[in-house]
Amino acid sequence: MSDVYAVRRGQLRDRCAAVGSAAALVSRPANVRYLAGGAPPGAVLLLGPGGDVLLSPRAPGGDPADGRTDDQLRVSVLPATDGDPVVAAADLATSFGAESLAVEEHHLTVSRHRAMGSVAPRLRLADLGATVEQLRVVKDEEEIACLRIAAEITDQALGELLESILVGRTERHLALELERRLVDHGADGPAFATSVATGPNSGQGRHRPSDRRVEEGDFLSVCLGANYRGYRCEIGRTFVIGTTPADWQIELYDLVFAAQRAGREALVPGAAYRDVDHAARYLLDSAGHGGGLAPWTGHGVGLEIDEDPQLAPAAMGKLDACVPVTVEPGVHLPGRGGVRIDDTLVVRPEADGGPELLTITTKELLAL
Amino acid sequence: MSDVYAVRRGQLRDRCAAVGSAAALVSRPANVRYLAGGAPPGAVLLLGPGGDVLLSPRAPGGDPADGRTDDQLRVSVLPATDGDPVVAAADLATSFGAESLAVEEHHLTVSRHRAMGSVAPRLRLADLGATVEQLRVVKDEEEIACLRIAAEITDQALGELLESILVGRTERHLALELERRLVDHGADGPAFATSVATGPNSGQGRHRPSDRRVEEGDFLSVCLGANYRGYRCEIGRTFVIGTTPADWQIELYDLVFAAQRAGREALVPGAAYRDVDHAARYLLDSAGHGGGLAPWTGHGVGLEIDEDPQLAPAAMGKLDACVPVTVEPGVHLPGRGGVRIDDTLVVRPEADGGPELLTITTKELLAL
Repeated sequence: MSDVYAVRRGQLRDRCAAVGSAAALVSRPANVRYLAGGAPPGAVLLLGPGGDVLLSPRAPGGDPADGRTDDQLRVSVLPATDGDPVVAAADLATSFGAESLAVEEHHLTVSRHRAMGSVAPRLRLADLGATVEQLRVVKDEEEIACLRIAAEITDQALGELLESILVGRTERHLALELERRLVDHGADGPAFATSVATGPNSGQGRHRPSDRRVEEGDFLSVCLGANYRGYRCEIGRTFVIGTTPADWQIELYDLVFAAQRAGREALVPGAAYRDVDHAARYLLDSAGHGGGLAPWTGHGVGLEIDEDPQLAPAAMGKLDACVPVTVEPGVHLPGRGGVRIDDTLVVRPEADGGPELLTITTKELLAL
Repeated sequence: MSDVYAVRRGQLRDRCAAVGSAAALVSRPANVRYLAGGAPPGAVLLLGPGGDVLLSPRAPGGDPADGRTDDQLRVSVLPATDGDPVVAAADLATSFGAESLAVEEHHLTVSRHRAMGSVAPRLRLADLGATVEQLRVVKDEEEIACLRIAAEITDQALGELLESILVGRTERHLALELERRLVDHGADGPAFATSVATGPNSGQGRHRPSDRRVEEGDFLSVCLGANYRGYRCEIGRTFVIGTTPADWQIELYDLVFAAQRAGREALVPGAAYRDVDHAARYLLDSAGHGGGLAPWTGHGVGLEIDEDPQLAPAAMGKLDACVPVTVEPGVHLPGRGGVRIDDTLVVRPEADGGPELLTITTKELLAL
């Protein structure tokens, strides 16, 4: 098990060596977790000529080594008075004899970066860029297994909600109930803030639940996901409340459904990100909804809910097999509401049956 | 109402002018909220010779002007393709004729800072430092009223939990139930991740709830708080489960109780931060628990749960009236558990009755 992390660190070390940096400092929490297998909050990982060291701030009154770390890793817990672990890491890199250190400039603040420069003025600080994020894009089968369980938990939580009475309950309460059910079924927590949107709020991307109550005739859109062992999935569904949907509701639902299916069907290894986006966006655009669309129609998921790749009109790159992504087009009509349909899928070659759908809750228009 | 924000922006503009910067860019979310009265996620605030502008990224499929903004403020919503609002702000500051722009270096990443430099090479980027955080330390009565309501909600949620049966339930479920009750009583959400710690976990600062179940004879410590209109408070209590606490539990409880009382009593305008910390820390230190203590015994609260001042041994500065802080000493004995007692109070002059206790749940050792 711990080999996985050592292999990943080896890959990172190879990439650093290729660009002439013998030492790297990883500070972005999801990247630290990917490479160290769990770490206390605020911990950073130094890969250098002196070996790999996890530098952890002292947790207030808590266990300093909270989280499962790979046992091949040296863990150095800083006394609280020593302050910022990235500064300690710069100091340590110098004592290892490193001349340059690649850091995550997209995560480090200007102040922390400057403080590193002050304690280690002769250490050249280079940019590691999104190297670790790139390593994280293609998942191994163990990661996909975690996502699969996260999706099962999510489907269960949503399924139970659909069996309960919804009219008269607020968005906020429904969101909290979904989150409680996720945990009941074994999630470590919600993957992101659960969104429940009713009536005129429905169909919006990440609507924050309000005190609006579910009413007869409403569209109800929900977006939720479980976090299982750090891996996060996402599902979005739209329902109609009451006996019979109105014509405009059926029409809009069918349109978004068709767009989402087109996006899912475009998920093949080698497909350009922008082509997947286009497949989902095209139908909505043609129907005159182009102006209000979100800037993307899907994104990668994993240790973060929103990671590379982004499925967007200007995205560069092509899908690989074993990349889990969402496909989540939606239309929101101001004042009326709308529809969003969102699945998490894993890109697979056609020979293996094509994209693997993780979130299997029905996409029929249910009247609840 | 909107005057409050305009006044705050005026104060910031004065401070900037005093250090020779005619324009400032505020990016830290709580700071933006303090100065603009609510803003969509990712929005930044530019104060400059051309007026005050809130630059907001386009929300995916949502309402771009989510949140209540001060109507004296120009709101500029960027098309999604324009990317990062801080970069757009640098561009706009240049077109205002600004020669220098003070930015929050403790919030901006190195990458974003560099991108600003690229679009506006002749704009000198200075450091705004923690200027806005300093303005936020002393609260006005309207802010304190929000904190008072947040504390009432928190006391209610905790009080209800104490009336229910606890033995056999997991930390995770109790934490979720507390969060649901916070929202039931009118909170916008929890102020931070609710902590419930049982048995050997009890007494730890921000223990993450696990699947451990409450058992007879356990210490149970909880730490929670409501977020009400953005303002966040905190309460921590420790209880004992079962009929009679053990001798060591009573002894430890009395010690932490005395330390917390000493800390509360030290809250007078003009008291040095470090002296308040010392008052709470001294008794625990003397009893031989110094080694395991958290690096601080309290901190400011407001739009963030952990803001200035920090009540810690090396903290510089003195308390003012109308500063809300926590006093939260705790002792954790590895393998056995421990006690934490945590209140939110507002510093008030003795003539006004001394510190105002916001979180009024009893601090007797209750056996549940």
